[in-house]
Amino acid sequence: MSDAHFDILGIGNAIVDVVARADDRFLSRHDMHKGAMMLVDSEVAERIYAAMPPGEESSGGSAANTCAVAAALGARVAYFGKVADDQLGQVFSHDMRASGVHFPSSPLIGGAPTARCLILVTPDGQRTMNTFLGACVTLDQSDIDEAIAATALVTYLEGYLFDPPAAQTAFYKAAQAAHAAGRQVALSLSDPFCVDRHRTAFRDLVAGHVDILFANEMEITSLYEENTFEAAADAARRDVALAVLTRSEAGSVVLRGPERAEINPEPTRVVDTTGAGDAYAAGFLVGLTAGKPLAVCGRLGSIAAAEIISHYGARPETDLRKLVGGLV
Amino acid sequence: MSDAHFDILGIGNAIVDVVARADDRFLSRHDMHKGAMMLVDSEVAERIYAAMPPGEESSGGSAANTCAVAAALGARVAYFGKVADDQLGQVFSHDMRASGVHFPSSPLIGGAPTARCLILVTPDGQRTMNTFLGACVTLDQSDIDEAIAATALVTYLEGYLFDPPAAQTAFYKAAQAAHAAGRQVALSLSDPFCVDRHRTAFRDLVAGHVDILFANEMEITSLYEENTFEAAADAARRDVALAVLTRSEAGSVVLRGPERAEINPEPTRVVDTTGAGDAYAAGFLVGLTAGKPLAVCGRLGSIAAAEIISHYGARPETDLRKLVGGLV
Repeated sequence: MSDAHFDILGIGNAIVDVVARADDRFLSRHDMHKGAMMLVDSEVAERIYAAMPPGEESSGGSAANTCAVAAALGARVAYFGKVADDQLGQVFSHDMRASGVHFPSSPLIGGAPTARCLILVTPDGQRTMNTFLGACVTLDQSDIDEAIAATALVTYLEGYLFDPPAAQTAFYKAAQAAHAAGRQVALSLSDPFCVDRHRTAFRDLVAGHVDILFANEMEITSLYEENTFEAAADAARRDVALAVLTRSEAGSVVLRGPERAEINPEPTRVVDTTGAGDAYAAGFLVGLTAGKPLAVCGRLGSIAAAEIISHYGARPETDLRKLVGGLV
Repeated sequence: MSDAHFDILGIGNAIVDVVARADDRFLSRHDMHKGAMMLVDSEVAERIYAAMPPGEESSGGSAANTCAVAAALGARVAYFGKVADDQLGQVFSHDMRASGVHFPSSPLIGGAPTARCLILVTPDGQRTMNTFLGACVTLDQSDIDEAIAATALVTYLEGYLFDPPAAQTAFYKAAQAAHAAGRQVALSLSDPFCVDRHRTAFRDLVAGHVDILFANEMEITSLYEENTFEAAADAARRDVALAVLTRSEAGSVVLRGPERAEINPEPTRVVDTTGAGDAYAAGFLVGLTAGKPLAVCGRLGSIAAAEIISHYGARPETDLRKLVGGLV
């Protein structure tokens, strides 16, 4: 694998987060499902924003978070995603590059603004997300540089990418380029409602094009329409070479053929769960691309997730390499 | 005073903060004075931003921070400041209004972008600021609604306002409107380098138009070109009706004619000192406009400052009214 220029290539919705605190009443008043991601148009986004408390802005986006965390752990990382040529797009681009991520995507000029995710964090640390996709919806196959997909050990796709209509073609193009070069393709299911919206497309993609599947308990049971975690995990084991299943405070379960690893979560104080799954995927993939055993990959994921959960925002605030010690 | 519609009217540079962590070497490599505010043009701002680690954006500006904290403490607050008609201007406006601050200023259209302050926080919690004034420099007397200045108990001006050339006239217009209505005018000196840049203008303003002066030790000794805190404090006592002097971990000293109150700081863990002085002024003014004794005003300032220092960013993250208990 010495010809690989990148350990990880992430592809996803390039989004700036606006994080504010809110109580449960605010969520119900605005018909939000706690813990879920809802797509909103610009009008609804304006209405929610007008009602929101003062916020803090930082770069987000599921796969982009994973890339930033992986780069902070020392991996070589590239990212494709579409921002607009505006102030928030500049913030996003700056943050990716300042994180050490190669980010070659050209911004959209003269179209919709950079995507925004309005995130309400309740006192229990749960985040509820309202995404206005903006410039993201224009990501298409012309944004996929196949040469980069061919030189990355793992091409990592976020499930949210299935929401913008043109992105599915980008998705398949990247997966094909990666496989043609003998690389691996990973997918994160992102959100149970996202799985609901695109179940058939996800099933086809997972069975036919995905080597590594990341999902939490609600997502994997929704994908396979099973009632129990174990039944869904069995289905995943049959579909993909490697299934990485997270279960919040119950830790994570990793399945590779007959192999099964169970990993405890790192103890931490929960402040804001935004980006926890993204960070777990980052730690896991950093371990995997460095050739570590599954249990070590899972521990790297748990440590990275614990750091992200302990403060507001989805990007690391402390030196992750120090935190994981000698593990990578 | 029952005809007052506002307790506090703040006037200042409307700025969005970009906060990132940096070490001392980063500061010296970019010729920054630790703890100070430096004005930069757009080119230098671009250069510093390109070299900065990933950041978090939030609304800032010295008097704007004071207004947000005062509103969080339950005061009736208005603010004048100039943003541009762009994304960061919308963020600033949203955050002021969501904080409960009346913010009637119209944005600048088709000119410079919203002002930005690039803030580097070193591991000792000190913040070093690089401000690109952008749209701020267009604030002038046409932005001063004299009717509002006439109905606010205290009109609070930040010293930084002396940097944009047109703002001095706005400054004097607001002070005159306030005094004509029998209200009080407060000034914060903002920064020792700002005092250096405008010492003569500040001396004239303080002696002739200011009732309440806020300054820290370096600012007050710079203003009066004295070597000791006590000598400078004596000079301030002669110049203004009320001098509120902060001394970091040594607490604060408040002088009103023959009266002298000394207030201990609240114990807290220092994470980021950005906005500490702004929050102190807010707490103090909330107490003062509620008719509290000087020692209580100082304690309110210390409690508000301690909250701001304990996390990244200059705006409150916890319920300040709960924190100050029965004090207001």
